[in-house]
Amino acid sequence: MPTLHAVIMAGGSGTRFWPASRKKRPKQFLPLAGGLTLIEATVQRLAPLCAPENIWIVTNPVQARALPKVMPSFPRHQIMVEPEARDTAPCVALATATIAAKDPEATMVLLPADHLITPITAFTTMLQRAVQIASDQKTLVTFGITPDHPATGYGYIECGQPLDASEPQAMAAVRFREKPDLETAKQFVAAGNFLWNSGIFVWSIPAIRDAMNVGNPDLGKAALAMLNALLQNKPAAVRRAFRAAPKTSIDYAVMERARSVAVVRANVQWDDIGSFPALTAVGTTDDHGNTAVLRGGARSVACESNGNILYAEGKRTIAVFGVTDLVVVAVGDAVMVCPKDRAGDLKTLVRRVEQDGFADLL
Amino acid sequence: MPTLHAVIMAGGSGTRFWPASRKKRPKQFLPLAGGLTLIEATVQRLAPLCAPENIWIVTNPVQARALPKVMPSFPRHQIMVEPEARDTAPCVALATATIAAKDPEATMVLLPADHLITPITAFTTMLQRAVQIASDQKTLVTFGITPDHPATGYGYIECGQPLDASEPQAMAAVRFREKPDLETAKQFVAAGNFLWNSGIFVWSIPAIRDAMNVGNPDLGKAALAMLNALLQNKPAAVRRAFRAAPKTSIDYAVMERARSVAVVRANVQWDDIGSFPALTAVGTTDDHGNTAVLRGGARSVACESNGNILYAEGKRTIAVFGVTDLVVVAVGDAVMVCPKDRAGDLKTLVRRVEQDGFADLL
Repeated sequence: MPTLHAVIMAGGSGTRFWPASRKKRPKQFLPLAGGLTLIEATVQRLAPLCAPENIWIVTNPVQARALPKVMPSFPRHQIMVEPEARDTAPCVALATATIAAKDPEATMVLLPADHLITPITAFTTMLQRAVQIASDQKTLVTFGITPDHPATGYGYIECGQPLDASEPQAMAAVRFREKPDLETAKQFVAAGNFLWNSGIFVWSIPAIRDAMNVGNPDLGKAALAMLNALLQNKPAAVRRAFRAAPKTSIDYAVMERARSVAVVRANVQWDDIGSFPALTAVGTTDDHGNTAVLRGGARSVACESNGNILYAEGKRTIAVFGVTDLVVVAVGDAVMVCPKDRAGDLKTLVRRVEQDGFADLL
Repeated sequence: MPTLHAVIMAGGSGTRFWPASRKKRPKQFLPLAGGLTLIEATVQRLAPLCAPENIWIVTNPVQARALPKVMPSFPRHQIMVEPEARDTAPCVALATATIAAKDPEATMVLLPADHLITPITAFTTMLQRAVQIASDQKTLVTFGITPDHPATGYGYIECGQPLDASEPQAMAAVRFREKPDLETAKQFVAAGNFLWNSGIFVWSIPAIRDAMNVGNPDLGKAALAMLNALLQNKPAAVRRAFRAAPKTSIDYAVMERARSVAVVRANVQWDDIGSFPALTAVGTTDDHGNTAVLRGGARSVACESNGNILYAEGKRTIAVFGVTDLVVVAVGDAVMVCPKDRAGDLKTLVRRVEQDGFADLL
């Protein structure tokens, strides 16, 4: 069986959890997985499958510098740095080239750093199966999550026939559908053969290289240029090739155009923790629906209050009185208050904070 | 003209401004008067009238210990300490005895530490006139504020005829009325001859001693016992006499029963800053009605928000997004959020904070 490498994509900008998250401290660096940061939990989740030297993180320069503070034991040479933000396709090309330079026949799992997935054992079993499919059948494999509501914030995968009648969880992926409107999302959920696109992919290096060449030849060329530059140990040429790669998503450039994609239905609890209200999956919720996520000695008091999200770090206390469905965050030098139903639009506030000349807070 | 002494009453418990105010840092210690604390502003307001050695502060033991940190230059021997909380009457008895021991014919002004009064010149003029009336006529003098709305949170003074036709601002006080219900308050305001009781009093030492003996003989006896103990330099006996004094208010025990009370209509801006929403009189208000009171480098951002009160001290920023009519406070180790219309009931939250075992925050 080919060697398995895992590439953790950790490039988020961190506005949706401001001021808990900052430019130097994106969501994946927040301690939302029990006592661990999300990225630590992601690495831990891979440990049963991957040798430590085969776990990679790909991120932007700012977070690459911040990472050793969050995960001091993670080897720095296993951090790949994207020279600029160009969506996910160039990032996958860089990851593919980096692994191909070491192990051209490897199988690779690509996954986001900031998702919450439990239990680990189910995830491990599922990932092992995906790795087997990817290496046996030279197909691209995605993980699909069974929708529990018609979410408009996720992409969907339309599933076809099972690859094998004895294993209904592994199916052909018929089509990728971008984030739908609510009506379409309802139809997807009613149809029963649509899964959420988890953003977790498994493929062999030869298969993804083929798929890039087919789906977006410029991307394939960029990946090849990066590989050649890496083999010649020319980091400036790697960066140049990255910058020349088409700025697009891997879903659009490759997955939607690939000859053969399989989808594995994931029997796990999965949450991409998109914004503060999702912290109900992480925190402690009282009888009045107030969820507290408290780290580093923080405390909270909710008096005559309902349905609030309280997030604090360090030796501070959040006390709310007579309020409903608010998000209250106290981290470092900033306090943020907004209604839960505006939390998804926090970038508007972040933009305003910057306009007001307080970019030091971002 | 007799010497003028001023006694600043500084005994508030500080729950209505929690967590800006704490047990050791009541409202009068908050920097709400420009850059000054309210108590500093009160002392400053008295400077044109009173020699520095004749300005006194009467307070509880906890605040007496904290006071030198807030006002390092205030002489410690001019701080009178109430051995326990027994409402205002024993406090006035102690103040009267302390001044009588030094200067039995003095005139005395008694005023709260935590009110905001501007402009100083008008206040000075008014106080000079009150002092003159108090020393000429051996009457008790109060200051009344012209109501601008039917407040239910203040006591009212029913005014009678002017003492002198040439000076309509100085009138006989016919009756003291406790905090009324709204209907009664409306009648008071409509009647036109009702003023708010500002809690500022001026009297000569002989006049207040007489009035205590008439209104509440036990209070008069306690004041005499305190005076004798002070003259014999027996602090334990002073404390004993204080504890034996009737636990009641000076309004009820003396003012409402006195033979002769005058009221001076005060042409000043007066605010007792009863709770957070009153900070509109102190802070900076933006076009959307958001009032910010920021001290020690604090900052605020209000985005798509209206009518909020934001109070912060130190190097921290409060950012609100999409919220209306909230109070958000960030001071020291605590953040508090409540609707403006619940801010008057903050003691409910404070009680809960204590019940939850966080008395260290009070």
